[in-house]
Amino acid sequence: MSLDTPAVKPHDRLQAALADDLAAVGELIRARMASEHAPRIPEVTAHLVEAGGKRVRPMLTLAAARICGYDGPYHVHLAATVEFIHTATLLHDDVVDGSEQRRGRPAANLLWDNKSSVLVGDYLFARSFQLMTEAGRLDVLKVLSNASAVIAEGEVLQLTAAQNLATTEDVYLQVVRGKTAALFSAATEVGGMIADAPAEVVKALFTYGDALGVSFQIADDILDFSGDSAKTGKNVGDDFRERKLTLPLIKAIAAGGAQDRDFWVRTIEKGRQEEGDLDHVLSLLEKHDALQQAREDALVWSAKAKKALDTVPNGELTDMLHDLADYVVSRLN
Amino acid sequence: MSLDTPAVKPHDRLQAALADDLAAVGELIRARMASEHAPRIPEVTAHLVEAGGKRVRPMLTLAAARICGYDGPYHVHLAATVEFIHTATLLHDDVVDGSEQRRGRPAANLLWDNKSSVLVGDYLFARSFQLMTEAGRLDVLKVLSNASAVIAEGEVLQLTAAQNLATTEDVYLQVVRGKTAALFSAATEVGGMIADAPAEVVKALFTYGDALGVSFQIADDILDFSGDSAKTGKNVGDDFRERKLTLPLIKAIAAGGAQDRDFWVRTIEKGRQEEGDLDHVLSLLEKHDALQQAREDALVWSAKAKKALDTVPNGELTDMLHDLADYVVSRLN
Repeated sequence: MSLDTPAVKPHDRLQAALADDLAAVGELIRARMASEHAPRIPEVTAHLVEAGGKRVRPMLTLAAARICGYDGPYHVHLAATVEFIHTATLLHDDVVDGSEQRRGRPAANLLWDNKSSVLVGDYLFARSFQLMTEAGRLDVLKVLSNASAVIAEGEVLQLTAAQNLATTEDVYLQVVRGKTAALFSAATEVGGMIADAPAEVVKALFTYGDALGVSFQIADDILDFSGDSAKTGKNVGDDFRERKLTLPLIKAIAAGGAQDRDFWVRTIEKGRQEEGDLDHVLSLLEKHDALQQAREDALVWSAKAKKALDTVPNGELTDMLHDLADYVVSRLN
Repeated sequence: MSLDTPAVKPHDRLQAALADDLAAVGELIRARMASEHAPRIPEVTAHLVEAGGKRVRPMLTLAAARICGYDGPYHVHLAATVEFIHTATLLHDDVVDGSEQRRGRPAANLLWDNKSSVLVGDYLFARSFQLMTEAGRLDVLKVLSNASAVIAEGEVLQLTAAQNLATTEDVYLQVVRGKTAALFSAATEVGGMIADAPAEVVKALFTYGDALGVSFQIADDILDFSGDSAKTGKNVGDDFRERKLTLPLIKAIAAGGAQDRDFWVRTIEKGRQEEGDLDHVLSLLEKHDALQQAREDALVWSAKAKKALDTVPNGELTDMLHDLADYVVSRLN
């Protein structure tokens, strides 16, 4: 597999290689987000779906199925299922976070209301389960319903962990598994399952998706403090302002000990943030080498993802998945 | 089947006849609402589950399975699934309605917050799908995922129909099918399916649940205007105050024509309600015979439910389902 980062991003290469499948997924999504009786549903959904998003998760399902030699129609259903679950999660997340923007547009909860976001999210969840039953595979249904439970559990855990200075790296990992990695790993796993790949290949695909998801989320959380806001589309320090205990903060808080304790209690626990606090946070992250250490964690997860691909059949798509794991952390350079 | 209303309510007789099964359902619900990682989940769920509720829906599944001679273990899973879907729906409904009370206790959205209600509801939806996959029946999964979609669609439709004076009886029926009848009919249908009952029996069980659900909801909507608030636990006229267009209002608005139009525009469409308005609504309902006509509709649906039982095997439990259909509308006498 190629180790150098190619000029074209692996995400775009996957998109080109899977263009036909992705077009079928897009068509299925449009057909199934309709509702004969409640026109509000496609309005809200179209707002999100048409805003684009990178469709990373459905691409993972399609790629995994193709890598394992699948030539039936149901990888398209499963890819659409995964995107529906993701979209439902976004709708509910935006209600929970009181978001104002999503994918560069006003969030649905602002454009319509929280009620519509909650109920249309429920509709998409239900639709996703309808879609997956069409693939006719109970084993796949189990994986995707388990993933949905882990996602919701992770979101609740994130809610109760927020503002709690006792949050450990273990709890962070649990949250990340829920909010990001569970759907990545289910996406790759069911791609292998629908192709009837051998158990060790399915397991490796799961491991790849899980590790990719974790490294992706850690990288995202680092970029929140170090990223170029023109590129990330977010302001530096949003997570600090929202008092979310992400990996860099957890590392800095642990390293600072009693010395910085009062600062963290005031800014995170009590939420009494003042001007200049973010600069102080950045200096503490620097002092305790927290971003660099978090980056090393992200690299370990990325390496784990790539290693898992050793057990997966070789080929062009597998190379792209390999490069995707590199790309996720290359954003940190 | 007995036609006289017995002294003991049919609901209580079902509860006694299904006591062992219901205990197993309760145990399974407690086991599955747990979450190793997020203790907030069982807190919120226990608040609702332990508040009781009549467990009508799981009883419908258990009764249907037993009537059809089922002696396996999975009717318990399906009954718990149905109750989980119902509980998830209640959590999200209370967020959407901004409810202050549920089952005589403060609503979860007040006791914790809307965020917890949204996310714990999602968790219960996911858990319900996990539970139903355990029954190992794709046909059952299709029925329950379809029901979930119809429920969410009905809720969205109710949201957009609220305050809209153009709402017809057809739209009302669509909303009722979603918010109430879809889960009643799925509950009875999957009970028959898990017992491998003949197709015409499964269909009759569906029809029974559907018609029971519709008559139950119409009766509820009538009681909102005519009920004894000590018995119903709700204030007379809540639906009018929330500008919900239920069957009695739809009938009164249609019958009143241009004459009452200004009153309805002001109170329902614009929501500018004044003292004395509810009394005027009650007089309009009386003048146009709206409650009596709605009651007749409820009786038609109740009769349809009872008729469907002709195709279902006879027995003590079937008699109880018959009496339940009578009881639902007997509350209107």
